[in-house]
Amino acid sequence: MTASPVYIIGVDLGGTNIVVGAAPANGGTMSGVHSEPTRAEEGADAVTARIVRMVEETITVTSQQAGVERSAFVGVGIGAPGPLDRESGVVLITPNLGWTNFPLRDRVSAGVGLPAALDNDANCATLGEWWIGAAQGAQHVIGLTIGTGIGGGLILNGQLYHGASGIAGELGHISIEANGRRCNCGNYGCLEAYASGSAIATRAREALGGGEPSLLPDLVNGDLSRITAQTVYEASAQGDGVARHVVRDTAQFLGVGIASLVNIFNPEVVVVAGGVTQAGDALFEPLRAEVRRRAFTPAVNVLRIVPGELPGTAGVAGAIATFAQQHRV
Amino acid sequence: MTASPVYIIGVDLGGTNIVVGAAPANGGTMSGVHSEPTRAEEGADAVTARIVRMVEETITVTSQQAGVERSAFVGVGIGAPGPLDRESGVVLITPNLGWTNFPLRDRVSAGVGLPAALDNDANCATLGEWWIGAAQGAQHVIGLTIGTGIGGGLILNGQLYHGASGIAGELGHISIEANGRRCNCGNYGCLEAYASGSAIATRAREALGGGEPSLLPDLVNGDLSRITAQTVYEASAQGDGVARHVVRDTAQFLGVGIASLVNIFNPEVVVVAGGVTQAGDALFEPLRAEVRRRAFTPAVNVLRIVPGELPGTAGVAGAIATFAQQHRV
Repeated sequence: MTASPVYIIGVDLGGTNIVVGAAPANGGTMSGVHSEPTRAEEGADAVTARIVRMVEETITVTSQQAGVERSAFVGVGIGAPGPLDRESGVVLITPNLGWTNFPLRDRVSAGVGLPAALDNDANCATLGEWWIGAAQGAQHVIGLTIGTGIGGGLILNGQLYHGASGIAGELGHISIEANGRRCNCGNYGCLEAYASGSAIATRAREALGGGEPSLLPDLVNGDLSRITAQTVYEASAQGDGVARHVVRDTAQFLGVGIASLVNIFNPEVVVVAGGVTQAGDALFEPLRAEVRRRAFTPAVNVLRIVPGELPGTAGVAGAIATFAQQHRV
Repeated sequence: MTASPVYIIGVDLGGTNIVVGAAPANGGTMSGVHSEPTRAEEGADAVTARIVRMVEETITVTSQQAGVERSAFVGVGIGAPGPLDRESGVVLITPNLGWTNFPLRDRVSAGVGLPAALDNDANCATLGEWWIGAAQGAQHVIGLTIGTGIGGGLILNGQLYHGASGIAGELGHISIEANGRRCNCGNYGCLEAYASGSAIATRAREALGGGEPSLLPDLVNGDLSRITAQTVYEASAQGDGVARHVVRDTAQFLGVGIASLVNIFNPEVVVVAGGVTQAGDALFEPLRAEVRRRAFTPAVNVLRIVPGELPGTAGVAGAIATFAQQHRV
């Protein structure tokens, strides 16, 4: 008789959506994955209640599918926007949610009746890719999640690296142009100011100013303010010259930043995740070439630069894995 | 009766000089520290013989001073220019020394009759500052040694970080200007291309082209090719406007790079060592201001940026400490 597997539930709390799912603690397929709008404007209590209900639903679905009892579920991992205090499980400030010093971990734990663990969403996304995604088996992993902003996560010697006060891994905020574009963080020339989803949309609008014919205006019915990174990827896939140029520039900006990170960390894998992966080879081929051109050859020789393999669920997978690491399950 | 302390000998092998000294394995004052020219042109065998003789001299002096037997000396740590293979103790390629695939660790070990350990010189310099210098007691330390080039070392969770193939920590080769000055490494805009000793001298020569009166030409008897970073620090200390401007620019370039590193690592200490520390507050004050202006405030709040405390001996101290860590003394 072998020991029955234990299960962990993961919660990925975003500004727009909450995603919840479960998986066996030793890895394997996720189950009971579902998503609901966050509705942050209803307040922290309402969002916590929604999370608790979603966790219960995931437990019900997973226990039916896997044929296990509720007692097989040992805990809840939560990924949330930072900054937060892992030790105390408190979300300190979340501009996207409007919360201050909210004890999210203990509130979810009390609601579900299971122990819980908290880490930031970008760390969880990277940890998820390491646990069951594109970076499995690697000891040293850099994760970049490119959405509205650029989130980062670092796995060094097989563990998430948090730094002295838990805010390490702000990889979107390395300056690639000392006196470049002003970033939302106050610094100048941050990678995020050039290669985030918002920056891609901004650069596309700027590029249209050149007057070159493009599909982009048609895709947004002439309202250029509605251009998003997504619009750029669609136009690029249809062969649009302006959009392709924007994607190629994105690859070069990312290449400058990733080359620096490769010289710093000598990692085995860089996982680039988020909406930007929709640009596919049009992004990844020039990106790899730029890194090869700039970074130290011995470091490039042991490196893979790959798209994330868990679109939409890396955060949940990582939330599960962070519970497993924090509680040594 | 307490156990007698054991001692470790450290060797800092540079392109110009070899420095050797010893210390108790549990830290404390170094003794028997002395230096000789490397004379790399005599070949690897001659340099190895010189290292072995210097180690013997250090053992003799230290055992007399400390009143301990030769049997108290348990090993030799060696810091050498990289790239090298720590596992096998082999120096792979050293442009400064002209060696290829030389088994330095085992050759020194055989010559001295003690076990030995090898790591690269920049890692050792940072580890030395952590062990008995400016970064004592910290868990997360970034070390920058600014000489002809810029060497880097990373101490994360109290251990040197080496990366996937042992070449992590090339902190001089983060790009602060995507299309900036060409670096010797082939990349563009590297911190080293702006803030190394050679770059400081180059920028001083460029600044003199503006025609502003300066002490610099007099300090080198009119031969501008003889301007070094040292000349710039001297002129700056004497109040020279051009030199002060060069030092202030150096602080800003370093500030851009260090702010990125602070956002990445959230360290407790950044140690800036090497000749550049001679510039003193004229460098460190604007440097700290630049980092404060650019990096995330919560990360800056837990951060100290300090000059190295072991000029000339950080590498030896770190070589001793790397033996202690590798052999768990």
